[in-house]
Amino acid sequence: MKTMLVADILNGRIKVENKVIIRGWVRTRRDSKAGISFIAIYDGSCVNTVQVIANNNLKNYKSEILHLTSGCSVSIAGYVKKSPSKGQSVEIYAIQIDVIGWIDKPETYPIAPKKHSMEYLREIAHLRPRTNLIGSVTRIRHTLALALHQFFDQHGYYWISTPLITSSNTEGAGEMFRVSTLDIENIPRNLNNKVDYSKDFFGKETFLTVSGQLNAEAYACALSKVYTFGPVFRAENSNTSRHLAEFWMLEPEIAFANLNDIIILAESMLKYVVKVILENRAEDLSYLDKNSNKSIISRLEKLLLSNFLCLDYTEVIDILQKHHEYFNIPITWGMDLASEHERYLTDKYFESSVVIKNYPKQIKAFYMRLNDDMKTVSAMDILVPGIGEIIGGSQREERLEILDKRLDEIGLNKSDYWWYRDLRRYGTVPHAGFGLGFERLIAYITGIHNVREVIPFPRSPYNIDF
Amino acid sequence: MKTMLVADILNGRIKVENKVIIRGWVRTRRDSKAGISFIAIYDGSCVNTVQVIANNNLKNYKSEILHLTSGCSVSIAGYVKKSPSKGQSVEIYAIQIDVIGWIDKPETYPIAPKKHSMEYLREIAHLRPRTNLIGSVTRIRHTLALALHQFFDQHGYYWISTPLITSSNTEGAGEMFRVSTLDIENIPRNLNNKVDYSKDFFGKETFLTVSGQLNAEAYACALSKVYTFGPVFRAENSNTSRHLAEFWMLEPEIAFANLNDIIILAESMLKYVVKVILENRAEDLSYLDKNSNKSIISRLEKLLLSNFLCLDYTEVIDILQKHHEYFNIPITWGMDLASEHERYLTDKYFESSVVIKNYPKQIKAFYMRLNDDMKTVSAMDILVPGIGEIIGGSQREERLEILDKRLDEIGLNKSDYWWYRDLRRYGTVPHAGFGLGFERLIAYITGIHNVREVIPFPRSPYNIDF
Repeated sequence: MKTMLVADILNGRIKVENKVIIRGWVRTRRDSKAGISFIAIYDGSCVNTVQVIANNNLKNYKSEILHLTSGCSVSIAGYVKKSPSKGQSVEIYAIQIDVIGWIDKPETYPIAPKKHSMEYLREIAHLRPRTNLIGSVTRIRHTLALALHQFFDQHGYYWISTPLITSSNTEGAGEMFRVSTLDIENIPRNLNNKVDYSKDFFGKETFLTVSGQLNAEAYACALSKVYTFGPVFRAENSNTSRHLAEFWMLEPEIAFANLNDIIILAESMLKYVVKVILENRAEDLSYLDKNSNKSIISRLEKLLLSNFLCLDYTEVIDILQKHHEYFNIPITWGMDLASEHERYLTDKYFESSVVIKNYPKQIKAFYMRLNDDMKTVSAMDILVPGIGEIIGGSQREERLEILDKRLDEIGLNKSDYWWYRDLRRYGTVPHAGFGLGFERLIAYITGIHNVREVIPFPRSPYNIDF
Repeated sequence: MKTMLVADILNGRIKVENKVIIRGWVRTRRDSKAGISFIAIYDGSCVNTVQVIANNNLKNYKSEILHLTSGCSVSIAGYVKKSPSKGQSVEIYAIQIDVIGWIDKPETYPIAPKKHSMEYLREIAHLRPRTNLIGSVTRIRHTLALALHQFFDQHGYYWISTPLITSSNTEGAGEMFRVSTLDIENIPRNLNNKVDYSKDFFGKETFLTVSGQLNAEAYACALSKVYTFGPVFRAENSNTSRHLAEFWMLEPEIAFANLNDIIILAESMLKYVVKVILENRAEDLSYLDKNSNKSIISRLEKLLLSNFLCLDYTEVIDILQKHHEYFNIPITWGMDLASEHERYLTDKYFESSVVIKNYPKQIKAFYMRLNDDMKTVSAMDILVPGIGEIIGGSQREERLEILDKRLDEIGLNKSDYWWYRDLRRYGTVPHAGFGLGFERLIAYITGIHNVREVIPFPRSPYNIDF
């Protein structure tokens, strides 16, 4: 007898009348007066349960089956039968039901089959994947990650892993976590009474990275097309629905490319993965569409048909100034957009995703390529409705003398960037790349409001359980 | 005119006599007396270069082309022609060659086209992907990662990301990096003059994880089949060819599985990815086989045909004791195998990969399932020739009372494991999983001796540059 996943049985990978073994957990149990129990079983392979019919002639019917509660684990052997009920193609007539694990005090089981608040589920992050909602999000997350890898592989990119522990600060700003093996109760000090990093694991002050970009540039200048996909960190004390202290970022970096090339790449990448999710995770999307956010499928279908709007930062400022009555913060040229401005553009003014490019150099990082106007840089952000920025990218400054001038202006030490400058000394090429916040993309696709729901064990200020 | 990658041109994706643009870097230049230059161009898309023929009637022939050196970046338009030379199918007759980036002081270019030592290349990790060797390793690393994702996807597994910053210590041992945002020059202290972690980012003492397993178990107990693939950390002061402070680990975790199931899974996973590499990265393998390690292809082909040897720890100890003359450390039952014992088994006694299972409980972690003999646990390690252990796994203790007893024995605090214990209280199931050291797998497949060559920017004690 074959052991099969619930998804395979529901998808018809086994013929009706065949015998099968399934293993999973009880979602619900209902007993008829005629001495038959209907048990809905899930195993996480898909959002739907398979219905198992347990007749009272099973030897443990009274002793065990009638005591099954939500969450009990079972192994069931039975016949696959065509189902007379609507909404399910097949069901299983049990020959034998073995109870593997009971629920300790069923009345207190934290995941009773009912609606729970997101906040409550976060407190039991170890059990929340047992819910339909988090289960669906997890399967979508998986399919999305794989689709991204496949997209880049098909387009000639190589995945590289850039280091997480670093002695440099990519952005020249941004709060970072310190990494150390020094004895924190007795920090060693040097003759100047400063921390003696020479005794630390790496012999230097080290941090968790905020981006793999600078390292990815080195590889793009050798392999032409590369991308990173891995965790990055922000030690910012921001408790919002869009921020995590630890999250996953995808960063393609392309030699011989300019700003326009990466805007085109970002659009085709987003459309590709949305298409894959619509096709391959239709059941999960449809569960979320019904039970969580009623507009997600139509929104994704709309995205596939749309062309991304692309505006200059300067045009955007004009629009925002003309509609200043909507904002708490009056905006002027040279300022960064606040969340309220972003939201106005995507959710109200354009009602669609927007690409904003050519930002003032003073609000962007040192490595972004200076435009001929000498005031703006070849940078772009992609904003999506409901979430805000999910992609930020730029063409990189490939001209050594201009890069050096910018490092000086900002007060960064050129010798700290010796290897990054080498890339401009030895066969420099125009190149460009962007960073995609993976959790924000999942939040956008699933219509889940808070990024803490789309990563298994979220990290944020004072949240480190599990 | 179409812009194409060198790999696509060499693989015949453009017809002979067509015009094409390529962009890349000069590997070598050779000038004939007849006023023709032969320039080998690489762009990292494959290990081979494409030969470009530059005639002296090109307008910048004397002013630029005759000054091209290794590493210069160029954009070349030309005709694809059948090559008369052996070893290459096509070459390009240049119509136009634009030099994009020169080499600053060519005589000092760190990557001259000659053999460099691995130690030297590590000091210029930002430039070493420009070498054939590191380029090949990087492409193999990419294809291997994708093959692993595809293997697990095809077998019904979901990829999950487990947290890197953690307040718990998975193994109950092992050195970890501390993560903190406390001001290290002025550590805040509480009334007992101890470090006041309540002021730290997470309000608790936190570390970089050594494994995602415990978290993965929570997801396996909901989705049945999951795997993690991400970075993990070891703050061990070991400067060996097999250890990194930061490396990537793949960890499948499977509900309703026992030790035997994961041994079978590991074997079929390894064979699958080896097959993919032999098929899809044949050129890179063959480069490495010729230039670095002459036996890798035959070794991989042998692996595909072999069945993994599977022995009990107790049998292994017998073998090692019978051959005690080979070892510095005499081994007895209850001891962990040292590197010399592992190497003897794989490289000498069996001359093949070996699976060792059922280890004494006192040398293994608390979460491994106790066997009926009460002395050993359902653990397994897979050792491969030349590298040693690349996989370590176990069936997990799913029985709450036995888990609790082991936590007590070892002196671990049960309340620290409240959520892990919950998995045993609520619908517990037999489950098992393993961890694969990704860099060790790449080292094994590429025949590269040191794991520092198979990750872009290796981290080890006192090595944090780049």
